[in-house]
Amino acid sequence: MDFEEKVQSVENIFDGKVIKVDKETVALPNGKKAYREIVHHHGAVALIPITDDNKIVLIKQWRAPLRQVTLEIPAGKMEPNEYDDPKKTAIRELNEETRYQAQNVELVTPFFTSPGFADEKIYLYHASGLKSVSDPLPQDDDEFLELVELTLPEAFKQMQAGVICDSKTIMGLLFWQLMQ
Amino acid sequence: MDFEEKVQSVENIFDGKVIKVDKETVALPNGKKAYREIVHHHGAVALIPITDDNKIVLIKQWRAPLRQVTLEIPAGKMEPNEYDDPKKTAIRELNEETRYQAQNVELVTPFFTSPGFADEKIYLYHASGLKSVSDPLPQDDDEFLELVELTLPEAFKQMQAGVICDSKTIMGLLFWQLMQ
Repeated sequence: MDFEEKVQSVENIFDGKVIKVDKETVALPNGKKAYREIVHHHGAVALIPITDDNKIVLIKQWRAPLRQVTLEIPAGKMEPNEYDDPKKTAIRELNEETRYQAQNVELVTPFFTSPGFADEKIYLYHASGLKSVSDPLPQDDDEFLELVELTLPEAFKQMQAGVICDSKTIMGLLFWQLMQ
Repeated sequence: MDFEEKVQSVENIFDGKVIKVDKETVALPNGKKAYREIVHHHGAVALIPITDDNKIVLIKQWRAPLRQVTLEIPAGKMEPNEYDDPKKTAIRELNEETRYQAQNVELVTPFFTSPGFADEKIYLYHASGLKSVSDPLPQDDDEFLELVELTLPEAFKQMQAGVICDSKTIMGLLFWQLMQ
């Protein structure tokens, strides 16, 4: 069976700082026309940072789309000079958000957050052998963060409470649990 | 520390069939102004359907934003009459996409796919005791699907190959592995 939808035309709806939105007209496998609303994103990284005393380092922050405070693993968007090397982003974000550097930074898996309407791809890393950085990088001036370090059972409690509530962080907890 | 960003004004950019895009002006905790690009989504459900011979039921389909074929767990958007009962959506989508009905449909966790720019919330269910439906519901006429049933090791191979590549399906595999 042929699944491909052939793009016939693309209308750009919005070209923002973080996202770009297109409306595409596609030809379905049966020849009929359909429309696809697509959010483009430059891609991001996330880290599962585990301290030497086996705690996960999480970020407490406000999330505008959810209108709530969340606990999430450190993450950040790739800069243009990092598109060919997401590990660079991972090391930079770990420094910026947690003030840690890691002896080991290993790719766990890349994944798409929401393939129905967005092309956002996140590279998920495992970081261990954490030490305080000697060269703290400047933080984004519109980010207000607080660090929290939790054991695995404490983290699962925060998930049940709905404070840990996003896909990359829940995936991070599950991968961490499978590593125990 | 106060994290809240107070919304000062909202500009609607796009009001589509699947997504709505707003640009919000917010006041940061330090009083400065910032802009947030936000994708609104009505919410969805996804299921981890496990057959009596311990295979996961996956959907092969084209994903326009990724320009590729993927294998994903069954999922679908909530209809307006289902917003107060996502389990209804889960049962309907399982029928529409897989032609199965399930003896047990249990909530595993809700999660947000991408809290940095989107409010999309997915309710993830575990479905077991699968039987063929006697009353197949009509499928969306712009969806071309094929069913695939895989063992846990087969599914992890498809993940390593990048065919299973989205957050809800990878989370589904990890939860399933932890249930073994």
